[in-house]
Amino acid sequence: MTSPCKIVVAGGRGQMGQAIVPALNADPAFIHVGNLGCPGSTGDGLIGLAAALDVADVIIDFTTSEAATKLSEACAASGRPALVIGATGFEPDQLGRISEAARRIPIVRSGNFSLGINMLVGLVAQAARIFPRETWDIEISEAHHRRKIDAPSGTALMLGEAAAQGRGVSLAAVERRGRDGITGERLLGEIGFSVMRAGGIVGEHSVTFAAAEEVVTLSHSALDRSMFARGALSAARWIIGRAYGEYDMQDVLGLKSS
Amino acid sequence: MTSPCKIVVAGGRGQMGQAIVPALNADPAFIHVGNLGCPGSTGDGLIGLAAALDVADVIIDFTTSEAATKLSEACAASGRPALVIGATGFEPDQLGRISEAARRIPIVRSGNFSLGINMLVGLVAQAARIFPRETWDIEISEAHHRRKIDAPSGTALMLGEAAAQGRGVSLAAVERRGRDGITGERLLGEIGFSVMRAGGIVGEHSVTFAAAEEVVTLSHSALDRSMFARGALSAARWIIGRAYGEYDMQDVLGLKSS
Amino acid sequence: MTSPCKIVVAGGRGQMGQAIVPALNADPAFIHVGNLGCPGSTGDGLIGLAAALDVADVIIDFTTSEAATKLSEACAASGRPALVIGATGFEPDQLGRISEAARRIPIVRSGNFSLGINMLVGLVAQAARIFPRETWDIEISEAHHRRKIDAPSGTALMLGEAAAQGRGVSLAAVERRGRDGITGERLLGEIGFSVMRAGGIVGEHSVTFAAAEEVVTLSHSALDRSMFARGALSAARWIIGRAYGEYDMQDVLGLKSS
Amino acid sequence: MTSPCKIVVAGGRGQMGQAIVPALNADPAFIHVGNLGCPGSTGDGLIGLAAALDVADVIIDFTTSEAATKLSEACAASGRPALVIGATGFEPDQLGRISEAARRIPIVRSGNFSLGINMLVGLVAQAARIFPRETWDIEISEAHHRRKIDAPSGTALMLGEAAAQGRGVSLAAVERRGRDGITGERLLGEIGFSVMRAGGIVGEHSVTFAAAEEVVTLSHSALDRSMFARGALSAARWIIGRAYGEYDMQDVLGLKSS
Repeated sequence: MTSPCKIVVAGGRGQMGQAIVPALNADPAFIHVGNLGCPGSTGDGLIGLAAALDVADVIIDFTTSEAATKLSEACAASGRPALVIGATGFEPDQLGRISEAARRIPIVRSGNFSLGINMLVGLVAQAARIFPRETWDIEISEAHHRRKIDAPSGTALMLGEAAAQGRGVSLAAVERRGRDGITGERLLGEIGFSVMRAGGIVGEHSVTFAAAEEVVTLSHSALDRSMFARGALSAARWIIGRAYGEYDMQDVLGLKSS
Repeated sequence: MTSPCKIVVAGGRGQMGQAIVPALNADPAFIHVGNLGCPGSTGDGLIGLAAALDVADVIIDFTTSEAATKLSEACAASGRPALVIGATGFEPDQLGRISEAARRIPIVRSGNFSLGINMLVGLVAQAARIFPRETWDIEISEAHHRRKIDAPSGTALMLGEAAAQGRGVSLAAVERRGRDGITGERLLGEIGFSVMRAGGIVGEHSVTFAAAEEVVTLSHSALDRSMFARGALSAARWIIGRAYGEYDMQDVLGLKSS
Repeated sequence: MTSPCKIVVAGGRGQMGQAIVPALNADPAFIHVGNLGCPGSTGDGLIGLAAALDVADVIIDFTTSEAATKLSEACAASGRPALVIGATGFEPDQLGRISEAARRIPIVRSGNFSLGINMLVGLVAQAARIFPRETWDIEISEAHHRRKIDAPSGTALMLGEAAAQGRGVSLAAVERRGRDGITGERLLGEIGFSVMRAGGIVGEHSVTFAAAEEVVTLSHSALDRSMFARGALSAARWIIGRAYGEYDMQDVLGLKSS
Repeated sequence: MTSPCKIVVAGGRGQMGQAIVPALNADPAFIHVGNLGCPGSTGDGLIGLAAALDVADVIIDFTTSEAATKLSEACAASGRPALVIGATGFEPDQLGRISEAARRIPIVRSGNFSLGINMLVGLVAQAARIFPRETWDIEISEAHHRRKIDAPSGTALMLGEAAAQGRGVSLAAVERRGRDGITGERLLGEIGFSVMRAGGIVGEHSVTFAAAEEVVTLSHSALDRSMFARGALSAARWIIGRAYGEYDMQDVLGLKSS
């Protein structure tokens, strides 16, 4: 890529948006063209939708599920630009509308842009496919800071989905959460979750595959939240020049061909 | 100690007893005089109660709570020998009877004879006393093999008791088990437990003290169940020549004076 | 496989051989036909080379590099049976002779038959291929019992080779061992090794991939040495009916197609 | 303490000083009176030595060994204020001069103000005193970011000193660094060090006590460098109103009496 990639950020004032703008500014491969404001919003660096569709090579979206869905439709209607969506919490009909938009433009969508976590997802699916479920148990542990209000983390569940998919089962059918009291012996094939909340832990995840005589652990530790911004930028770099279609971080990382 | 210590084992055919006898035989500091059989039992190496009371320097008991309680009374009545009790599940009245017996003979009683775990209990109580609860959270994690039927492990609860005691609170009042779903933020002062069950994991325990910017973890990993036998033998070696009284592994390890 | 697989063990009196025979006996899918003795050796369960070549479906060899090489040549000359080689320390010319033998019979050869370690080798190579070396550092740590006399372990080096291969470099060119003193900053692209020796640790290996803001760790923990026997049996089960050729545990586990 | 504590910072423009000033400003228990400049330096917030000696309740010093030594002498000569020294690299004669100054004023001096690390130092010394060296091996591991230029870290060495002191030996006599190649079996009583350098790891330290059948690990993980500033402030809060004398963070934390 010879000339810098022009980026517009939607949701640039949110927590993730605020991490992405400095990361863009620090990387000469990108030009931060502006932030796509909500209709009627004003302020420095704001750009209108029409200008954004015209000028941007990629729009990075960390808004809400509905705003992101509408943005995908607007991009599709104008035939450009490419879209990187980090918004979460989509309803099935919204996902359908995004898939429809992806028949006109390339879209990367992911709930976690960390390169490490997405790598882990691929490795976990692969290990779960190969380790026989009769002899290898799978457990997922996560630890986060004391302010986190839900458990297990969305990322832990994503890892659980990867493990379940590797085994060709539904996570809902095999997950086991919150062991306490007289639990009885572990059931064959279940995927257990355990959760720690303490201090300022940024985010720890591990997937344990344990047989009678050996244990394999695949784990991820977040040192700094800025890693999510870096991942979104990798996705933006990757999507330039792609054919239309719906992609995720596994595609960006080349994990699917493996 | 110049001459070997004469040991009788009660419960020598149980899982723990079977680990203790070879450990005794392997250590020249001990002579395994025999196993104390149930009334009416026969077999090689059995010794009657009267002979055991007469000959043994120490009886190591891994029977049941009631059998161990009665044995303590028999030892007290004869004024000898010393007793190392590894049986568990005592009712309050049984504990009272053992305390009464300990006014005539020395008794070490513990639910876990691992030197490492008992060391950890002391360190955890001490750390919990010093780390301010306003800024340091405490979490206890454990992992065991797939056949374990209860959670958290007795040892995890013992570590939780040590942490609660260090903070001068009751564990029952602050414990938090099985986090799942929308939990809300962590409550100040709670002590959380998380549990993993997988494969053949012998036993892993860790106590995490986490502040906003740093984490201290005190952990124990069991490599082999024979460590419990070694600990019971350390207790037997220690109790020889002690004054009457009730002791635990913290006394044996010298952790109380520290 | 309908009828049990007939196995002859070469090196059945060595440390690994002694672990394999009970594992064979415990598994109804196998019949332990006998141990291939050294010429002139006598004892129960010994079988001569001619009988072994005639009767066995698979010979599992944990002898020495030269004995295993000669055995491969004998099998090749008779056109049977298949061979699973766990001996180590081969010279290049011995490897050449084994490759030649593998033009007549199927041979699995590996320095570590643990399923978990071999899975890890595949995952490490893959992760090393994908994580950019400019931003992700690779480090390999291992811990073993106090009696181990070499460092890093052969398995740590195998993991290092996998990482180097994933990056398309030679391990010898990038490895960094025994950091001590004023080391200067870490060089880009180096693969570091660190070593712990303590107590009875069976064997711990981990490969750390670390970027500025996140860390991925792929690790293995051995609970019991018997896992190596299980792995050799998996190889024996797999090799039955294969075409001639040289295979390793990556083939047995199906990790190569990924 | 009813009125806020008046603090002067020496070395306020260095890396640590820059972390301390915001921490002071964020805590209503403190008033940041000014920075003690080098003679002849100018700038906002600078205060002269005479004024600092007159006004400050505590001076926190993160300068150099010689500047800190001279400052201790100046404080001693004026009979006030108390001193918290975080400078490192003192020569024996400088330490002697500081001890002399501490006969007039209270001085806390430490190479690491993290509460967690200092807690760990106390726990390690205690565990090393109790675990018999004949059966328990001690190993120290640390991991830091790729820019660190020395190994093992000063904190790892401090932990090693604590372990050696607990065993009543000199660290220099028992330390074992950089294992590589044919090392032979581990020597009884040695204290090993292993080192990892990778990515942006803030700082990980662990001390492993391993016997044949069990392992106890005491570890510390730094999440953020600001923890060092917090520790220095704890020391400042503690030293107010103390008698003259030389103290360290073990005193501040109350670890010595335990």
